Amino acid sequence: MSVEITIAEMAKSARIASRDMAKCPTAKKNEALLTIAGELKRQAEYIKEENKKDLAGAKEAGLSAAFIDRLAIKDATIKSMANGLAEVSALEDPVGSICRTLIRPNGIEVSRMRIPLGVIGIIYESRPNVTIDAAALCLKAGNAVILRGGSEAYYSNMALSGIIKKALSASGLPEEAVQIVPVRERSAVNALLSQEEYIDLIIPRGGESLIRFVVENSRIPVLKHYKGVCHVYVDEDADLEMARRICFNAKVQRPGVCNAMETMLVHKAAAKDFLPLMAKEFSGAGVEIRGCPETCSILPSAKKATEEDWPTEFLDLILAVKVVSDMDEAIKHVAEYGSNHTDAIVTSDYNRARRFLREVDSSVVLVNASTRFNDGGELGLGAEIGISTSKLHAFGPMGLEELTTTKFIVSGNGQIRE
Amino acid sequence: MSVEITIAEMAKSARIASRDMAKCPTAKKNEALLTIAGELKRQAEYIKEENKKDLAGAKEAGLSAAFIDRLAIKDATIKSMANGLAEVSALEDPVGSICRTLIRPNGIEVSRMRIPLGVIGIIYESRPNVTIDAAALCLKAGNAVILRGGSEAYYSNMALSGIIKKALSASGLPEEAVQIVPVRERSAVNALLSQEEYIDLIIPRGGESLIRFVVENSRIPVLKHYKGVCHVYVDEDADLEMARRICFNAKVQRPGVCNAMETMLVHKAAAKDFLPLMAKEFSGAGVEIRGCPETCSILPSAKKATEEDWPTEFLDLILAVKVVSDMDEAIKHVAEYGSNHTDAIVTSDYNRARRFLREVDSSVVLVNASTRFNDGGELGLGAEIGISTSKLHAFGPMGLEELTTTKFIVSGNGQIRE
Repeated sequence: MSVEITIAEMAKSARIASRDMAKCPTAKKNEALLTIAGELKRQAEYIKEENKKDLAGAKEAGLSAAFIDRLAIKDATIKSMANGLAEVSALEDPVGSICRTLIRPNGIEVSRMRIPLGVIGIIYESRPNVTIDAAALCLKAGNAVILRGGSEAYYSNMALSGIIKKALSASGLPEEAVQIVPVRERSAVNALLSQEEYIDLIIPRGGESLIRFVVENSRIPVLKHYKGVCHVYVDEDADLEMARRICFNAKVQRPGVCNAMETMLVHKAAAKDFLPLMAKEFSGAGVEIRGCPETCSILPSAKKATEEDWPTEFLDLILAVKVVSDMDEAIKHVAEYGSNHTDAIVTSDYNRARRFLREVDSSVVLVNASTRFNDGGELGLGAEIGISTSKLHAFGPMGLEELTTTKFIVSGNGQIRE
Repeated sequence: MSVEITIAEMAKSARIASRDMAKCPTAKKNEALLTIAGELKRQAEYIKEENKKDLAGAKEAGLSAAFIDRLAIKDATIKSMANGLAEVSALEDPVGSICRTLIRPNGIEVSRMRIPLGVIGIIYESRPNVTIDAAALCLKAGNAVILRGGSEAYYSNMALSGIIKKALSASGLPEEAVQIVPVRERSAVNALLSQEEYIDLIIPRGGESLIRFVVENSRIPVLKHYKGVCHVYVDEDADLEMARRICFNAKVQRPGVCNAMETMLVHKAAAKDFLPLMAKEFSGAGVEIRGCPETCSILPSAKKATEEDWPTEFLDLILAVKVVSDMDEAIKHVAEYGSNHTDAIVTSDYNRARRFLREVDSSVVLVNASTRFNDGGELGLGAEIGISTSKLHAFGPMGLEELTTTKFIVSGNGQIRE
């Protein structure tokens, strides 16, 4: 059977399964999640055996140690996947809630009811834990999901697929509610992206090149973020001790993630005191500073920043630093070089705090807190399936609610339009 | 200058204007709307003169009388555009509202702030009133907008463009906040659809072929509906007098619009009483009935429906009629042949009313009311810019709020991530 036909049949059966999922009671969905968790633990040895085939293939292909590390399923990975399932089962079910009811002058009662999106396609790279995490969120939100993981994780994903199917069936849910593409060829991705008749949303997770490929080839709406070029602006009258803690946390706590600070902007009035203090702290943590001319004149040991550094997501212990003459210059810099992801100000000034929150066009804007808080769990959404930096449908971390939509429901007693 | 360069420069300047628009106070936006309304009335003769050039061109090209009627700007059209502007100026401004605030355990305060989408592109056909209606809604929601009307309305739209520019400028708003594409070639549409760096959303308005063209060629997210194949299901124990009024209204009040009923489904227990009653009513209004075999056996004068009739949007005084054995069959029919647009049930049964509302997957689902209520004004949204039948971002009529999104704002006092 050709790849195209396989994928089309998967998509069609997912659409049919999505109808049962949409009316599935919460208790049944939770039972399925916990059954998957139990099966993962029970079949841990089998999963690790299958994962070893992938690890062997990756080594043979000469893939990097970091890549192989992300690919490996250890006991801790299985435990974490099972815990994730339990956490999602404990989240409130958004489906079916009714809100914003109003009575129109003619007496019809108009409300919005939250409903699942339908069928979601997830395209991701090597980490097999995404298979479980993404499936759990889609399922809890009442959707059917088609997962397409990296071909390097083929055996691991096929093992997880069998476990999920068994658990769904044991819980009385359709097996087709969670399907994993059993095809290694890249053409499977293209085939998936053309199933606009059956798939409502595509979420790509991975590097920028994967995401660009998906956006350029998809006829289905895509939720994505390309990169996180996050800024912290240290204002004129910032509490410098607070600024030090926030900037250090934003850069160093986990430099390889999308909500880490990549550029620090410092008001010229604070620069002379703040930069040497901060540079000392950063140098102890191995952070390389690439500064604007004014930064370099205050910190002679800093490298010179090039124009390319400002829009770069380093994902590493590297930080671009710029001295600005006021908040307007900082906001302008963020608008020009930022990625609408996460930006923060440290300030004691009420008016500037207020203006920064309003005028910075990013999915999460913070006053006096670390950029690292752009995360579904930290912002109170529960688990997240990714962060959107485009504005349609979702802007910022996407939790269960972002995997749903609302329809209008109208109750009348015979009203007609005059 | 090539079409591509013209469009790219328009898009870039719209993006810059959108930053001013995003922070523009409500009073200033309302002033601009009312200034446009005043100018439209003051320059009515000029607008009609320019419109005559388009009408002459359309006649020369041999376009249909219905087409020419939609293209014509009469005194009533100008009055209606001016009234529309005043209505939009009176609507509540969604931008800047803050909601869903919660305090996290670590003390950060997390809220969502409503913000404009940014730059919106509207691609539509011949009716020049869309130029004003769409511009008004986009502007009130704090967006910049690029409008591309049909080439047949070129002179009319250029006249409106000049008036809008003058009014924006007089109100202190950037002239680039509302731009009308001054290019008649179709290649302007393709150029617009590839400005994903500057344009956040495309809304096509027009026939199915225009919309399919836009979806297939756009790299920018698109909100659209292809067609409205709307159903009314008359249940077993419906109040037949109520069913008669609702079905007549849904089909006949304005048959050429997307929320008109195209298929009537009747429970077999009600068919013998209801169909003759309804057929009499419909025949007086000139409605042609295309029935399933059972319908035709009750109504010998009805035409036989073919398989093609069920998914068809007639937009005319034609109605497909099917007798079903229960509500499950009705819901299944709607799922198979409907377009996720608008579907209604007429019933007296509490449980079936509740199930129909939950299980029918349409943007507006009604109990005991006409499908004609799927309209932003009727559902309490104020004016609308269209109806979405895909689920991402908006599902159903799109008002001001659907032309915005939310970002997260976080206020802390030094919190960092542990």
